[in-house]
Amino acid sequence: MVERRRKFYAWGFEDQAATAEEMAPVLDTWHRIFGTDRFEVMPAPTLETIDMRPPRITAIPAAFREICRQDRYERALHAYGRSFLDSARMFRGDFTRAPDVVAYPRTEAEVQALIDWASDIDAAVIPFGGGSSVVGGVNPEIDGNYSGVITIDMWYMNRVLEVDQVSRSARVQAGIYGPDLEKQLKEHSLTLRHFPQSFELSTLGGWIATRAAGHFASNATYIDDYVEGIRMVTPEGVTESRRLPASGAGPSPDRYVMGTEGSAGIITEAWIRVLNRPRHKVGATLVFDDYYRAAEAVRAISQAGLQPDNCRLIDALEARLTKSYDGDKPILVLGYESAHYPVDHLLKLTVELCAEYGGAPVERSERPEERSAVAGQWRNAFIRGPYYREHMTARGICRETFETAVPWSGFAELHDSVIRTVDEAIRRVTGRPGTVTCRFTHIYPNGPAPYFTFHCLPERARMDAQCMEIKSAAYDAVMKAGGTITHHHAVGRLHMPWYVEQRPKLIGNAFAAAKRALDPAGIMNPGVIVTEEAIAAWRRAPANHEAVAAS
Amino acid sequence: MVERRRKFYAWGFEDQAATAEEMAPVLDTWHRIFGTDRFEVMPAPTLETIDMRPPRITAIPAAFREICRQDRYERALHAYGRSFLDSARMFRGDFTRAPDVVAYPRTEAEVQALIDWASDIDAAVIPFGGGSSVVGGVNPEIDGNYSGVITIDMWYMNRVLEVDQVSRSARVQAGIYGPDLEKQLKEHSLTLRHFPQSFELSTLGGWIATRAAGHFASNATYIDDYVEGIRMVTPEGVTESRRLPASGAGPSPDRYVMGTEGSAGIITEAWIRVLNRPRHKVGATLVFDDYYRAAEAVRAISQAGLQPDNCRLIDALEARLTKSYDGDKPILVLGYESAHYPVDHLLKLTVELCAEYGGAPVERSERPEERSAVAGQWRNAFIRGPYYREHMTARGICRETFETAVPWSGFAELHDSVIRTVDEAIRRVTGRPGTVTCRFTHIYPNGPAPYFTFHCLPERARMDAQCMEIKSAAYDAVMKAGGTITHHHAVGRLHMPWYVEQRPKLIGNAFAAAKRALDPAGIMNPGVIVTEEAIAAWRRAPANHEAVAAS
Repeated sequence: MVERRRKFYAWGFEDQAATAEEMAPVLDTWHRIFGTDRFEVMPAPTLETIDMRPPRITAIPAAFREICRQDRYERALHAYGRSFLDSARMFRGDFTRAPDVVAYPRTEAEVQALIDWASDIDAAVIPFGGGSSVVGGVNPEIDGNYSGVITIDMWYMNRVLEVDQVSRSARVQAGIYGPDLEKQLKEHSLTLRHFPQSFELSTLGGWIATRAAGHFASNATYIDDYVEGIRMVTPEGVTESRRLPASGAGPSPDRYVMGTEGSAGIITEAWIRVLNRPRHKVGATLVFDDYYRAAEAVRAISQAGLQPDNCRLIDALEARLTKSYDGDKPILVLGYESAHYPVDHLLKLTVELCAEYGGAPVERSERPEERSAVAGQWRNAFIRGPYYREHMTARGICRETFETAVPWSGFAELHDSVIRTVDEAIRRVTGRPGTVTCRFTHIYPNGPAPYFTFHCLPERARMDAQCMEIKSAAYDAVMKAGGTITHHHAVGRLHMPWYVEQRPKLIGNAFAAAKRALDPAGIMNPGVIVTEEAIAAWRRAPANHEAVAAS
Repeated sequence: MVERRRKFYAWGFEDQAATAEEMAPVLDTWHRIFGTDRFEVMPAPTLETIDMRPPRITAIPAAFREICRQDRYERALHAYGRSFLDSARMFRGDFTRAPDVVAYPRTEAEVQALIDWASDIDAAVIPFGGGSSVVGGVNPEIDGNYSGVITIDMWYMNRVLEVDQVSRSARVQAGIYGPDLEKQLKEHSLTLRHFPQSFELSTLGGWIATRAAGHFASNATYIDDYVEGIRMVTPEGVTESRRLPASGAGPSPDRYVMGTEGSAGIITEAWIRVLNRPRHKVGATLVFDDYYRAAEAVRAISQAGLQPDNCRLIDALEARLTKSYDGDKPILVLGYESAHYPVDHLLKLTVELCAEYGGAPVERSERPEERSAVAGQWRNAFIRGPYYREHMTARGICRETFETAVPWSGFAELHDSVIRTVDEAIRRVTGRPGTVTCRFTHIYPNGPAPYFTFHCLPERARMDAQCMEIKSAAYDAVMKAGGTITHHHAVGRLHMPWYVEQRPKLIGNAFAAAKRALDPAGIMNPGVIVTEEAIAAWRRAPANHEAVAAS
C-alpha cells in the first residue's frame, strides 16, 4: 500500500540509515560516557521473529478491503511510537498489542466510513500521522473491552489543497509529512517554518492534535498560533471551524480541538497561516562561564522583547556530548531571521545584552548565508538524532528525554532537583552512573522550557521498566517543582498519570463531558486525555465481540 | 456599599462627566452629520421614575445580608451593560428586568457561598465586573424558569496579591478595574499595558472571561496571551490551573475558561504576565490617497513581521468625524514602543514600506516623548468616547459599533458589503441617511480586524428596535462575507444567534456538555455561550420558586 516503506521498528524509511561516518562520533560519545567500547549488539527485530497475536477483527467489510491491511509489517509498524521505551519493547520482539487493522483512507468520506464501522463493531480507533509519538500516543495499549483496534493512518491525505497568497494562508490535508508540506509550499514561495525534531516523520494533523512546538521558528512556538481553522471527523460527524485570522467569539473551537490527541476525532484538514521564505538570517554562538548566569542572560533577552527565532542554552556536558563545544562550558546558540528586513541589529542587541552576563562569542558568521560551524554541528545532531536510536537500543544504551516549562522564579530549583533526582535514580535503578543534561528548547518572558536528556545502561532484559522507573522519578520531581508534565511532547498514554495530576479536576470533568458529546461510544484513542476509567463510566455495554470477529 | 458610585444609567462615576468644552466639537459633528442643530433633549432617567418590579427573591440569608443589596440604585446599576441599545432602554425607564439581588462578595469563599445559595434556591447568577459589556453579557434577560437573578459584583476583589519580579508575573484578583490594576502594578515598576476601550470601567476578570483585546498593546492582542493561570469558582467548586509560562499538556484549561463569559463560573483571580514600563515610544500618522491602497500597506506591514504596537487605519469619513484629519483621506496611525531598546528603526522601516503604497507622513513626533497631535486627538476621542453616549441618547442619536475579523482576501468584499448594507438599512429603517465608517483596530498577517461605526436618527419611541434592525442586517452581512461575529466585543446575549451560526454545531454540543459538568443546574449566566434551549434540555425540574420567595 505504501510504496516507500517506513522501518517498522526504527526511525525513518527502509532506504535511510545513519552512515558509519555519522555513527563514529556518536559511538565515541557512548564509549566516553560509559567508559567502555565493548557493547554487545543485539540483532534488530524481524517480522518473522516478533511476537504478534492474530487480529481480533477478522471480518473486513468489502468496501474497506482495498484500504485495510492486516499483514505483519503493517501491524508492526503501527504498534509503537518512537521513544526509547518503544524501541526497547520492539527489540524484545513484543508486538503483542499491535493493532488488529491498519486502514489507509484516501478521502475524508473514507475516514468517516471507517469511524462509523468502528462504532458499529465497537472497535477502538487510533489516529496515526507520522507515528513519531514519544509518549505512547499511537500505541494500542488499551485496557477497555473493545472488539479490537483499528489504526487509521492518514498517509494518503497529503496535499496542499489551496493557497491564498493574499492572506498568506493554505488549506492542507492533515496527513502531509513535514518535508512534503514544505516542498509543496515552496512551489508557491511560501513556508510554514514549523520544525519539531520529528519534522521528517510527523504530519500537520499530528502537530495540531498534539500541539507541537517548532524550532528555528519565526514568531510563535506552538502550531496552535498558525491554525486558522480545522476540519475534524468525529463519530458524530464532521466539524469545521470558520477560517479566521482571529476571533473573540466564545472559547476558541480550535483551541479545544488542539490537544485532544485523537480522543475526540481525526483532523482531516486545516487552514494554516504561512510565511514568506526568509531572506535574512544571522546567528551566533556564545559561551558563558556560569550556567545560571547564562540562564539569566536568556531571561533578560526574552524580557527585553528581543525574542530570537532560535535561542538555545545548552549546558556544558550536553554541549560536549553533542560535540557542539568542547570547552566544558555552557553555550547559547542564537538565530534571527526575516523574509523582509535585515535582522543584524537584533542579533547585535542580543549579543551586547549577553556580554553583561559574561557571554562571549565563540564564533560568528559574518555573512548572513554562512552558518556557524558550532550551530551547524548542533543542528545536525538534532535532526539526525532519531536515526541513532536503533543503534543505541541494540547496544543496550538508554537515551531518553523529557521536557517541561516553569516560571523563571522556579527554574533553578526545578533544574537542580531534576538533575539530582535523575542522577540518583540512574545509579539506584541501574547500579551505575549515567549522564543527565539540560538545554532550553523555547523561552518566554515568564519562563523557560528546559529539555532534559539522560543516558544510562539498564539491565538488558528490563530496559523499558528501568527507564520508566527513572522517568517516573523525573516526572515526580518536575511536578513537585511546579513544572508542566510536557511543554511539547504531548500527553499520550505515558504522561496520563501526571497530566491528570496537573489538570484541574473540574476541567478534567468538563473535557470528559465534551469528549462524550463527540464520541458517545468512547472509541476514539481511549485512555488519551480522557482516562479509560472516565470513559467506562458512560460507555455503552460492549457489543458481542466474538460475534463481530466471526461475522 | 460602594463608596464612589457609578452612574446607574451611563458611563463613568457620578463625579465624572464630559465637559461642555469637550462636548462642543462632538455636538458639532452631530450637527454636521444630520444637518441640524435642533435636537430635542430627553431628560435622563431617575431612580424615582424608572420602571422596576419588586425583587422576586425576598429572603436573604442572614450570612449574606451585609453583602447583598436590593435597593433601586443597585438593581438599576446592574440591569444593563453600556451599549446604545442598553442606553436607549435606560432612557425609556425600562428597568423591569433588573436583577433581584446584587451581591458584593469580599472573598472567594463568599463567592462560593453565594453560588451555593443560588443553587439552593434555583436562582440564575450573573457575574459582573465593570459592567461595560456592549453585547448584553450582564443583562438579566433570562427566559428560563429561575426563581430570580443574583448579580455578583466583584468590586471588592480588587488587589494585586503577589508580584514575581523574576518571572515578570503577578497574581491579581479578578474584580480589579483597569486603572487600579495599572496603579498597583506601577508601584512595582510594572505594567500590563492591556487597554480595551472600556479600560476605565472594566476588570481583569471581565477581560479574561470575554477574551478582551487591548489597544496600544505591546506584543499580543488578546488578554488570553497574558494569562498564566486562572482560579474560578463554579457550582461544583473551585478550579485552579497550574501557573505556567507555556504547556502542551492537552487542550489548554485556561483557553477553555477564556470565552465562557461567566457561563461556567466566576473567575476570582489569575496569574498574569506583565511587562516593564515602556521607555522608548515613537509614532507617526500617514495619509493615503486611496483606502484600499492603504489597506494593502497595512497588509504589507503585518506580513513583513513589523507588527506595530499601534496600527490603526481610519477611513476618510471617520477621520473627519473624530476630528483626526480633515483632508477627506484615510489616515494610518502608527506606534512602536519598548521598555528596552530604541524602536525608531522599526517605525522608519514601516514608513518606508507605506511610501510604496502612497502613504505620506502627516506630521511626526521627532522626540519620543512627544505625541503627534493627530494621534493624540484620535486617542482622546477613543478613551473619552463612552462618556458622550448619554448626551447622544438624550438627543435621540444612535451611534453604534460592531467589529469582526476576516482573511485579507475577503476584506474588500466584506467591507463593501457591510458599508452598503448598513447605509441602506439606516435609510430603510429610519427613513433618512446616516453615516457608516470603518477603522482597523487590530491587524494580523492573515487578516485585519475591521471595526464599524454608524450614526443614525431612529424613531424616538423605537430607538433600540430600529438600531437592532440595522445591526442585524450588518451582522448578517458580516457572517455572509466570512467574518466572525466578534473580534473582541464578546458574545453576550446580543450575538448569540450569529455565534451559534458561526460555531461548529458539534463543538457547540461539546461546550454545552462541558458547561453541564461544571454547572449541572444551569444557573451560571444562562443564555450566554450555551443557549437556554440547550440548558433546558438537562436542567433539573425548577424548584418551587414561590416557596423560595416566601421562606
